[in-house]
Amino acid sequence: MTRSVVKRKALPLKIGFLGGGQLARMMALEAHRLGLEPHVYSASPQDPAAQVTCHHHVGLLTDFKTLNEFAQKMDCLTFESEFVPSEVLTDLENSVDSEIFPRPSIMRLLQNRLTQKQTLLRYKVPTAPFLEIENTKELLPVWKTFQGPFVLKSNFGGYDGYGTFFAKKESHLKSLSEELPKSSQGYMAEQMIALKQEVAAILVRSSSGETLALPLVQTFQTQGRCDWVRGPIQHKKWADMQKRLFSMMKALNYVGALGVEMFDTGSELLVNELAPRVHNSGHYSQDALLESQFALHLKAGLGLKLGSSKILAPQFVMVNLLGRSQAELQAPAQLSGELHLYGKNENRPGRKMGHVNYVGSKGPNLLKTALRERKGFQL
Amino acid sequence: MTRSVVKRKALPLKIGFLGGGQLARMMALEAHRLGLEPHVYSASPQDPAAQVTCHHHVGLLTDFKTLNEFAQKMDCLTFESEFVPSEVLTDLENSVDSEIFPRPSIMRLLQNRLTQKQTLLRYKVPTAPFLEIENTKELLPVWKTFQGPFVLKSNFGGYDGYGTFFAKKESHLKSLSEELPKSSQGYMAEQMIALKQEVAAILVRSSSGETLALPLVQTFQTQGRCDWVRGPIQHKKWADMQKRLFSMMKALNYVGALGVEMFDTGSELLVNELAPRVHNSGHYSQDALLESQFALHLKAGLGLKLGSSKILAPQFVMVNLLGRSQAELQAPAQLSGELHLYGKNENRPGRKMGHVNYVGSKGPNLLKTALRERKGFQL
Repeated sequence: MTRSVVKRKALPLKIGFLGGGQLARMMALEAHRLGLEPHVYSASPQDPAAQVTCHHHVGLLTDFKTLNEFAQKMDCLTFESEFVPSEVLTDLENSVDSEIFPRPSIMRLLQNRLTQKQTLLRYKVPTAPFLEIENTKELLPVWKTFQGPFVLKSNFGGYDGYGTFFAKKESHLKSLSEELPKSSQGYMAEQMIALKQEVAAILVRSSSGETLALPLVQTFQTQGRCDWVRGPIQHKKWADMQKRLFSMMKALNYVGALGVEMFDTGSELLVNELAPRVHNSGHYSQDALLESQFALHLKAGLGLKLGSSKILAPQFVMVNLLGRSQAELQAPAQLSGELHLYGKNENRPGRKMGHVNYVGSKGPNLLKTALRERKGFQL
Repeated sequence: MTRSVVKRKALPLKIGFLGGGQLARMMALEAHRLGLEPHVYSASPQDPAAQVTCHHHVGLLTDFKTLNEFAQKMDCLTFESEFVPSEVLTDLENSVDSEIFPRPSIMRLLQNRLTQKQTLLRYKVPTAPFLEIENTKELLPVWKTFQGPFVLKSNFGGYDGYGTFFAKKESHLKSLSEELPKSSQGYMAEQMIALKQEVAAILVRSSSGETLALPLVQTFQTQGRCDWVRGPIQHKKWADMQKRLFSMMKALNYVGALGVEMFDTGSELLVNELAPRVHNSGHYSQDALLESQFALHLKAGLGLKLGSSKILAPQFVMVNLLGRSQAELQAPAQLSGELHLYGKNENRPGRKMGHVNYVGSKGPNLLKTALRERKGFQL
C-alpha cells in the first residue's frame, strides 16, 4: 500500500517488531489492518505478538547476529521497548539498511533517564529539578540541594515502578543508600513534586514532519503501575507543553509515537518521563479515536498522512487488567466496555494481562462503571 | 477467558475458522483481541486469514478426513461462507464434538436459495414471490405466473451477482433458457421487484438466546457487488421485520451473526437474501460501533453477553475497494477514513481487496468524501 513511501521495496511492506509483548501485538494487529506484513522478533513463539502473525522469528535482543539477519530482511523496523542494549542500537544503526523508527540514536538518548532529562532541559521542556548522582553512598548532599524529599531513579531499565526509590525523610537516607540495588548505569535524583494528579498524552510525529497530539488524559497508578486512564482532560499549560515537545521532536527528527507522562501540580505541567514508543496511557485510542496510537505510530514511520484522529466519544476510560494471582484470568460474561486481552499464557501478580476500554456520553460516571465491571474478572 | 461458556476445555479457547478469506481474517483479528486462539483452516498459508495467526492448517473444505481432524482439535468452529458442501456439513454435525455455530443443519437450510425462501415463508418473513423451477427449458409459464419480469437464481453457490440472471422481456426467455449455465442444484425464479433502494442489516443471536440488531443501512451494488454502504437509515417496517426475523432465528435456534439483504420498495421491506455469517454490509461496524459484527459473531457463539453495541457516530459510510486491474493496489497517503486491507497478494478486476470506513457528524456529506478519496487508490 505504501510504495510511495518506501519506494525501493516490493509490496507488501515487511515491518519488523523488536519484541513480542502486548505493545508489539497491538501494533501487529493494526499492521494487518493496514495491509502491511508484520514480522515479530522475540524469544518465544508463545509471546503475545508472536501469536498474531504467521511471521515469527525466534531470537534474543542480545543476539547480534540473529537480530541483524532479521533486521536486514525487513523494509522497516520499530521498537516496543526502549530497553534495547546500547551496543545493539549502534549495530542496527551502522549496519542495517531498513528504515528504523524512532532512530536508534534517539532510543539511546531517551532510554537513559539522565540523558533524557538533559534532553528535556536542552529543549526547554518543563520537568522536575534533577541531579546526576555520582555516589549513591552519599545522599545527604542531594537532600540538602533539594531542601527535602527526592526520588532516586535507575538510569537504565526502570519501568512500572521498578528502579524507583523514594527518599521521603532525612532519617531514611542511610538505609536507602545501603539497600539500593546496583544499577548498571547508575542513578539520578529528582526532586519530589507535590502533585495534584498525573497526566499523560501521546504525541506523534511522522517522517514527513507532520505532528499530532492525542488528547491529554489523567492516569492513575497503583504501586507504580498504570491502573486506569480517563479523558479527555483540559489543562491551561497543555498547549504550551505541546509546542515545546514538538520543537524537541523536530530538532531530534523524532519519528513515531512518543508517550509523555506528566505531573500536574495544578498550575504547572512537568514532564515526568518520555517513552519513545506507544504507551499504556494511549490504549484508550483503540476505541475512543478513529485511529489508534498503534496505527498512528506505523503511519508516522511510513510517512502516511496522520490526519486528525477524530475523538469518537465525549468521554473515555481505560482500565488495566493487572494479575493479582496465578489463577487463570477469566472475564465476566457481561462487559459494557471493549475487552483487549494479550494472550499471555500465565497470570502473575502485577502482570499486565489486558485492558478494557469504555466510551460514553458526557454525563454518566464511566470510571465508576469500569471499576465496578473490573471486579467481575478473576485476575 | 470463557471457561464459563465452554466449561470442559482448557484456556485459551481454540476457535476454528473454515475458510481463509477476508471474513475469516477479520474474525481472527477480533478473536485475538478477545484472548481466543484463532485457528484457520484453508487451502494456502498465503490466504488473508492465514497471515494473521500462528495457527494455520492447510486443507480443503472437500477433504473430509483432514477437515474432520482439524475440527476435532477445536473447542468451537465457525464459517466464513455458507457454501460448504452438504456432505461435509453432515459429517461435521455427526462426528465432531466441538461447538459449531451456526449449526451445520442451518447452514444447509440457508445455503440453498429455494429452501431459504421456503424458510422465510414458513416464518412469515416478507420476501418477494418465488417459484421452484423444475425445467429451465420452459420459462414462459414462469413469466405468466409472475405476469412479467423475474430473476433466475442458482439454488447453490450464487454470490456477488454470480448465478443470477434477469428475464426482463418476454422475448428474452428463449435465449436466456438456452444460455443458462448448469447449476448443480437447479434454479429458482423470483418476481422482479420495483425497488427504491437496497438495504441491509446484521442481526445477532447468542447461544444464550440474547438478540441484537445492528442499524439498518443502505447498500449500493455495482454489477452485483457491494460498492458502498451508508447508515444508519430509518424505515417504518424495520421494527416489524426485526421481530419476524428474530422469531425465525429463535425457532431455528440460530447462533451467530446473520446478514440480511433487503429490498426497500418505499412502503415495504422484503428480504432479498440471508447470509448465515458476517457480511460485507456490516463492515462499517469495525469503526462506527463499539463492538464490530466480527466480535459480536464470536461472542454470540461463546454465549457472552452481546450488550448494546453503541453507535459511536451519527453517520457512517463504508466503501469497498474492488480491484479494477491487475496492477498492485496502492493506497493514497492521505485518507480521512479508516483503511482495512485484506492482504490479498494479487489484484484482479472485481476482487474485494479491502474497504475504508468513515464516521462523522450529522451534517457533512460523508459519502461524497468517501467516494472522492477512493479515487486516490490504484485498484
